[in-house]
Parts: sequence; C-alpha cells; structure tokens
Amino acid sequence: MAKGKEDFEVTPYEVKGAVDYNKLIERFGIREITPDLETRLAKYAGDLHFLIRRHIFFAHRELDWLLDKYEQGEHFYVYTGIAPSGSMTIGHLVPFALALWLQERFNADVYIQIPDEEKFLARKGLTLERVHELAYDDALNIAAMGFKPKKTKIFFDTEYAGVLYKQAVRVAKHITLSTVKDAFGIGDDANIGWTFYTSMQAVPSFLKSVEENKNVPCLIPLGVDQDVHFRLARDVVDKLGYYKPAIIHNKFMPSLSGIGGKMSASDPDGTIYLSDGPEEVERKVGKAFTGQQATAALQRKYGGDPDKCTVCQYYKFFFEPDDRKLEAIFEAEKNGTLLAGEHKKDLAKRINAFLRKHNERKSRARSKIESFIARG
Amino acid sequence: MAKGKEDFEVTPYEVKGAVDYNKLIERFGIREITPDLETRLAKYAGDLHFLIRRHIFFAHRELDWLLDKYEQGEHFYVYTGIAPSGSMTIGHLVPFALALWLQERFNADVYIQIPDEEKFLARKGLTLERVHELAYDDALNIAAMGFKPKKTKIFFDTEYAGVLYKQAVRVAKHITLSTVKDAFGIGDDANIGWTFYTSMQAVPSFLKSVEENKNVPCLIPLGVDQDVHFRLARDVVDKLGYYKPAIIHNKFMPSLSGIGGKMSASDPDGTIYLSDGPEEVERKVGKAFTGQQATAALQRKYGGDPDKCTVCQYYKFFFEPDDRKLEAIFEAEKNGTLLAGEHKKDLAKRINAFLRKHNERKSRARSKIESFIARG
Repeated sequence: MAKGKEDFEVTPYEVKGAVDYNKLIERFGIREITPDLETRLAKYAGDLHFLIRRHIFFAHRELDWLLDKYEQGEHFYVYTGIAPSGSMTIGHLVPFALALWLQERFNADVYIQIPDEEKFLARKGLTLERVHELAYDDALNIAAMGFKPKKTKIFFDTEYAGVLYKQAVRVAKHITLSTVKDAFGIGDDANIGWTFYTSMQAVPSFLKSVEENKNVPCLIPLGVDQDVHFRLARDVVDKLGYYKPAIIHNKFMPSLSGIGGKMSASDPDGTIYLSDGPEEVERKVGKAFTGQQATAALQRKYGGDPDKCTVCQYYKFFFEPDDRKLEAIFEAEKNGTLLAGEHKKDLAKRINAFLRKHNERKSRARSKIESFIARG
Repeated sequence: MAKGKEDFEVTPYEVKGAVDYNKLIERFGIREITPDLETRLAKYAGDLHFLIRRHIFFAHRELDWLLDKYEQGEHFYVYTGIAPSGSMTIGHLVPFALALWLQERFNADVYIQIPDEEKFLARKGLTLERVHELAYDDALNIAAMGFKPKKTKIFFDTEYAGVLYKQAVRVAKHITLSTVKDAFGIGDDANIGWTFYTSMQAVPSFLKSVEENKNVPCLIPLGVDQDVHFRLARDVVDKLGYYKPAIIHNKFMPSLSGIGGKMSASDPDGTIYLSDGPEEVERKVGKAFTGQQATAALQRKYGGDPDKCTVCQYYKFFFEPDDRKLEAIFEAEKNGTLLAGEHKKDLAKRINAFLRKHNERKSRARSKIESFIARG
C-alpha cells in the first residue's frame, strides 16, 4: 500500500488522517457503486437501504457480477463479521444493518464470523479469555439486531476451528509471507499467528460452496479498511475453484470529535458504545463537533455545514432512515435555525431511545443465542 | 541453523549428508543420554528398551528433570507423531516403538498427532484429500502396534482443530516471523500456513496440562530432525505457564543404499515401506549395501564392518531386539562367516515376517480405530 505521500492511511489495524474515499477507490482498485447498479439492486430488493442511497456503502467489487448471477437464479449468501477488541460501537453496526436488510430482502443466509483470535494476536495486552468474553457480547449485540436464527450462523474462530482451519490451510498455501507483509505493511517482528489469520478471515467467503459442494455466490458488506484481506483472498478463492466473493464497502462512521478518520477505541469520547449509559451519551454528544458559528446570532445569520457537523452525520449514518426528515435536519443546520444545543439534545435522545430498545432486544437474545452459534 | 560449513544438514524438511550425531548434539544444544540416566530410567521401567541400550535414542532435553518429577510422584504422558506424506516406513516406527514401551512400562497416556496439513503446506503437489487418506492409513499402522485405546489418543490436525487451534494461537503470539525464518531456514516465499504450523505441533506438548488444568510432565520421543520445533516451543510453553516438554531424540534409520542420511521418499529402493510386498522387500534388501569384500573368498579372509553394513544396521535399529543375537550377527559379519547373500536373505525373511504380522494387526485395527481417534 502506498504510504507517506498520502495524507491518510487505511489498514485493518489503523485509520489515520482524513480519508478521501475517491482516492481510496483508486488506491484499492475498487469501484464506485453507480446509479445503474443501484437501480438493479433496487429492482430485486424492492427499495434501497438508506446506507446505499446515501453512499455510505460507496464502493464494491463485482456487485454487478453478483446481480448477474442473481438474475440467472443463483441466490447469494452474505458474510460479514467483527473482530472483538472492546464494546461494540454504533459504527460497528453499519455492515450488520446492511446484512440484515439483505437477509430480509433477498432471504439470504448470513454467515457472521467473530474472529476471537485476531485482536489477541495483533495486540499485546489482550488475553484470549477477555477476547472471548467480548466475542460473546458481540454475538448478543448482533443477534439483537433481528437476524433470523434459522438463516443466520454466528461463529467464533476458536470454537469453529474444527470447520475453519481445514479450509484456512487451503487458502494459506497460496499466500506467501511477502504477500502478507506487503499487503498489511508488517515486518518480521509480526507473529506467525497474525500472518496466518488472514486465511481464517477468507474461509467464510467460500464456506457455503464447500458445504453445498457447488458454487454459491457470496456478498460481503464490510468497512473499507477490511478490503485488503479480500484483495488477497479473492485470487486464492478463485484458484481453489470457487466464486470470488463480491464485496460492498462502507465508509467509516465519523468520530463525534470531528469528521475524518473513523470512530476508534483511542478516541472514546468521539465514539458511542452500545454499552454507554444515557448520561454518557448526553455527555459525549454534548461535546460533539458541529462546526457551528461562534454565537447563536452568527449561526442564525450564516448557518452551518451539515457535511462537517458530526451530529448531522450521525443522523445520516444511522439515526434518521427517512431521507426527507434527514433533509430537513440538514436544511435547518444550513440555514441556521437549528442551534447546536437543541441539535445535540435531539440526537442524544434519539441515540438513547435506540440503545434502550437495543438493550431490551439484547436481553431477550440471551436466551436464544445458542440457536445462532455454530460450533465444530 | 549453521549451514554451508558443515558436511551435513538436518532440518524437518531435509536431511543431507552423513550425519555426525556428536556434532548434532552440539549444534542443537541437546544432551547425550548418559549411563547414569539410563540407570535411572531402567530403575523405574524394569529394563531398557533396546533402542535406548543401543543409543539409537541418543540425546535428550531434560530427561533428568522428567525422572525427578516421576520420583516426586508426577507421572508423565507421551507425545509423538508423524506427518503423512506417503506410506509409512520402518524408520517411522522407531519413535512409536519407544512410545509403546513407555506406555507399557510407565502406564503413560500417549498423544499422537498426525498433522495432515503439514506436508500439504510444505510441498507443492500434495492435495489435502490425499494427505488425509495417508493420515488415516498412518493411524491404522500406529494402532496396529498395540497401543491401548483407552490410554491413547490419535488426532488429525484438520479434524482436531476445534481443540488445537485455540491453543496454537496462544503459542503463535510468542513466535515472530524472524524466529521461524531463522529456525527453519526459510524465506519470504514460504506460505503463511507453513510458518504457522509449528505452533500446531507445539500444542500436544502441553495439551494435557490444559485439559487437566494442572501441570502434567510430557515426554516426546522424536526423530532428531524434529527438534527445531521444540527449540521454539519449549520457551513458549514455559511463558504460557506450563512445564516444558522433555524430549528424547532418535537417530535416523539408515538407507539400505548406504549409511548416512535418513531413509527418504527420494530414495525408495533404500527404504522399506510398510506397504511393501514380500517380493519388493526381497528385491530392495537384495540390493542393500553391505560393504562386504569383492568376493566370497576375500570376505571370508578379511570380513566386513557391521557399522557400515546396512543389513546389520537394520537388525540393530529394529529387527533384532536380543542383544546377544545381534552381537552374533555383527561378529559373523566381522569375521567373514556371514556372506552377503545369506545375510540379506535372512533379513528379508525377518522383515517379511514382521510385515505379515503387522498387516494382520492393521486389518484388525480397522474395526477399532475410532476408539483411538479424537475429534473436536
């Protein structure tokens, strides 16, 4: 990956600087989701998810191919996942929200990998036991979103290795140390588990084809920082005789501290965790960057910029699915009628309502979580 | 590993040149099995296996510590294994013969790893399916040796990864790419599965401690070419809080083509496979190198050298457990009374008798093999 010359950097282990998504498309060799593709998708789905309408899912690999296959009667399954390293954030829910929509609209099976070894291998302080606790909590959060147990398989790598490892070694045989070192920008001080891990992440992208002993198309919604895994995996999956997975990439949920980069554990006040209590949410949103003018009078006179206002962006990314309502919020920000105080109070209320409901669903998910989890 | 300067090389993937075992002890930092250690071992075992008496098991790591523990009432288990890549050879049986003896004499549990991914990852032409077939055949050969099903656990890595992988990532976190590249003499063109593999081989050396949630000493009989895996693993196992495994190392069964190096797949005529038929055995032994004089008359006059005669060595390594009988064979070779033709005919007969019995036991093992195999 080119480094140094660019003012931002996107890897699975770090996102630095203000991400220019157009440059990223070029850098990663991915493609923009065109209006034509949106039309085709909407034709089969009945509508478009707001995450696609708003270009939060902005890029893809072979989504056109996937739709060709769909037209030919080959139904796809969906694969996504999350690497546990702390409490899940609102931003983590974005690919899952799309996966859920794909399950509803396309009756798609959804495979969800929770690699409980990845961050353990990549970070010094974490124990496997701690990561596994987090993994279980992630599974509850995901189940709480409303996936159908019969159409959804959640698995932890260390508990599903009986299935995954055999396929991972088939992938690993085709990936050299040089390739991984180049792709992830790591050196010989990396541990041998970390470098192996990418082959474990590749497996669910063709696992259904292995299980059914025939090719089944796969669509992977993911944060664009994860693309590198599949830049490697797609070639290998092809060599193994399976369909390359199609991918759609989402932008990063912005930090409440300001647009640019991605919500992250190193910026806890800019990040809403699913575990945050109501006061915590109010406090964080209260400090959010809006970019409004210095005084209420100036704001009323000059207005603000919704593209720089993190509160507006929170509505856009997650909390206001209705485009007209979102437009009204953006307009009010632009023309200065919506002042920061009220703006933030509204969002905090909205987030807290979501979290309250989410946590109720999560409590209920506890009793049925085993029907989601695959072991072996 | 030092290379170039020495006239031989020993790695898990290649043995080249005439191995000097004294130099190897120094090079690997292992220790000779002393008469004192033999005495201590015999005290508890009741006797010594001829493989130890004859210094075919010639070196160790912390066998003294293992016996200390035994004296303190901490019983050990045994771990060994074989990486399937073709039919098993007589030479492959050597560590298993010792493991069996340890089971009988010390009532030890025996863990047998059959890494059905290792050679798949290390070699170009092999498919996983083929290796797995070979692995199953290896398991039958091993079970045929007479291990007790209740005290013996055989596992294939791809089928036991549900247990092994989780422990392997704990090991892998402590091993860097540099360490593995150095230790195995490989470069960045190695694949990421191969470099990960050493952590899978490490797991059974502390697995019983994990299972029992308390430290259990482990003894590993193995071909000295495998030592490098445990040079890495022992440090890591210690860091994880488990006992370092003790190791005893065996020399390589010589090739029938001549002393030096190790029986190998690239020298099929120098190697007796467990799958060889009687004529095949007669043919190979008929071509064996004895180093006898050019004519019968000269041989009777000058005699031969048992240390260079591969037929003698075959008796020593496997086919004549009785020391006095072996001595008689060696004497007859030395004083020229045993001519090559008869010498070879006797050995071929002995090998064929062994293989016939072995294959009968293997047939019977088929019906009870599942009681040996652990999956998960």
